[in-house]
Amino acid sequence: MGPPPAVADVRRAVRLALDGMAPGSLVLVACSGGADSLALAAATGFVASRAGLRAGLLTVDHDLQPGSGDRAADLVRLAPSLGLDPAEAVRVHVGTEGGPEAAARQARYAALSEAAERLGAAAVLLGHTRDDQAETVLLGLARGSGTRSLAGMPARAGLYLRPLLGLGRRTTARACEGMGLKPWDDPHNLDPRYTRVRVRTRLLPALEDELGPGVAEALARTADLCRDDADALDAWAGRAYSAAAGFDSALSDIGGEPGAVVLAVRELEGLPSAVRRRVLRRAAIEAGAPPGTLAASHVLQVDRLITAWRGQRRVEVPGGIGVVRRYGTLVFARHPASPIS
Amino acid sequence: MGPPPAVADVRRAVRLALDGMAPGSLVLVACSGGADSLALAAATGFVASRAGLRAGLLTVDHDLQPGSGDRAADLVRLAPSLGLDPAEAVRVHVGTEGGPEAAARQARYAALSEAAERLGAAAVLLGHTRDDQAETVLLGLARGSGTRSLAGMPARAGLYLRPLLGLGRRTTARACEGMGLKPWDDPHNLDPRYTRVRVRTRLLPALEDELGPGVAEALARTADLCRDDADALDAWAGRAYSAAAGFDSALSDIGGEPGAVVLAVRELEGLPSAVRRRVLRRAAIEAGAPPGTLAASHVLQVDRLITAWRGQRRVEVPGGIGVVRRYGTLVFARHPASPIS
Repeated sequence: MGPPPAVADVRRAVRLALDGMAPGSLVLVACSGGADSLALAAATGFVASRAGLRAGLLTVDHDLQPGSGDRAADLVRLAPSLGLDPAEAVRVHVGTEGGPEAAARQARYAALSEAAERLGAAAVLLGHTRDDQAETVLLGLARGSGTRSLAGMPARAGLYLRPLLGLGRRTTARACEGMGLKPWDDPHNLDPRYTRVRVRTRLLPALEDELGPGVAEALARTADLCRDDADALDAWAGRAYSAAAGFDSALSDIGGEPGAVVLAVRELEGLPSAVRRRVLRRAAIEAGAPPGTLAASHVLQVDRLITAWRGQRRVEVPGGIGVVRRYGTLVFARHPASPIS
Repeated sequence: MGPPPAVADVRRAVRLALDGMAPGSLVLVACSGGADSLALAAATGFVASRAGLRAGLLTVDHDLQPGSGDRAADLVRLAPSLGLDPAEAVRVHVGTEGGPEAAARQARYAALSEAAERLGAAAVLLGHTRDDQAETVLLGLARGSGTRSLAGMPARAGLYLRPLLGLGRRTTARACEGMGLKPWDDPHNLDPRYTRVRVRTRLLPALEDELGPGVAEALARTADLCRDDADALDAWAGRAYSAAAGFDSALSDIGGEPGAVVLAVRELEGLPSAVRRRVLRRAAIEAGAPPGTLAASHVLQVDRLITAWRGQRRVEVPGGIGVVRRYGTLVFARHPASPIS
């Protein structure tokens, strides 16, 4: 008799994600103690030893709730019985930049990356499921910033793997049950002050009610397709940027002071707008505009220096960057170069 | 004293959409009598005469509700007072193919195109607003079929113009009020058996409640960005298709019977998956697969003949089309060619 179906599903997903990893490699599971990452941890302990890999556990103590230190210690004590060794609790300090959710996320990833490097790990496994992916897509949709923000989380990015993106949260809960594990219910996961919690507890159920079941799957599929699309367009824009900026040293007299980015207008004119706007966005960022505050509307204004040129003045974008069209080029510079006399 | 702000907004949107149209051209407004298209009709009558254009009205009688013929006749009678002449009621027969909403839409556009051609119109104006666009994006999201299905409705497609995509439904209602017009409330617009009605009356308000105001704007912005992205990728895929299929006459012996589509694998291998899958999808459709039933999962299976080639057998796609890899090509054919002896 094999394991319960949910346990088999989680193990299969982990096996697929670890396929091709060099024998003896160390993989670490980032585990909060919640159902998703607890099921992932147990499955990884099981799969890794049979695949000739070593597996360990990291748990991040955000130090934001009473008892978080005890819970981290409990997980570290549990780890060996799941086949996970080493096991470490990493305490982080959560700042405030970008809001509490973003600050906690940033602190968490920094701590995980540091521990992975210190322990010589080949991968860090994260417990995000298809439901997390669906929530991420809805949050991206509400930002209205296009394909990349709909692309959700990748299954693989650098050290980080997300083996469970194809599974629902129900499966990880059942897998924990099937392995006799008692997951921790983070009270933050029910706190409606968090946008993500409202998306999870109110919006996704409303979508399922009105549009029928399968909405989470559809959103996850949308993420995959949008990620592929965004990757392809970024690749095209990368080539177009190189072609348009390829001569910037020759034109440094036009560009003015160092740090200016100069693009040839004739290389940009024939591009589809989706590609051209990506090139312009990158140029603004390379010149010093902060990506977080550079909006589509700014890029659109710059684009009009190409598509609707009628001698406009300098276009201002965030970070004190000005963009002017001059001698068949667009010049992105912090202190706008004065006209050549 | 100028017109009320909402009236000015609708007129401005119409003026922008008609900008550049040849003097004396006839533009027709498709008007149901609802607030959106009634505001559009009145604004078009006002703007067109001042822009040296002629404007007329078309109203489609779907003959699905009692009294629809009377309402159409009322609109035709009202039209001259709005500056719209000619005015016609076009009666259509709604079939059942693809469900009641799709069938009504198809019948409507066929009738509008026929009338536009018969009357020699240069454009047909449609009253879709930003709210309609947001609903369309949510419906596309629920299908989970990627960037193109998130692209919503274009502001311009062939004869059809949608001048009001930048305005909310609230604006058209106020514009009607401001012009002393009494719009018709279509009872279908409140019938929760229609998915679109549930999206409008339940989902969008839930999204606004949980994610904050501005969701409709964000969805409309998403549509614009996704449409640009989809256009750029379709253009790339079109070039890639030509490159990969460019030699099909030389390979007709390999392809087998007429109608087969033959693609060179080496032209496809280096493409980003987003582009490659578009090329494969088009090849399947050109070979005879019905677009409506050809799913992403089919295309993915075909893609594995390139990305995960290990001597697989023929991949079946809808429409009785088989795809085989043979001599460095993919062959899409209705009756799979027998092996070359």
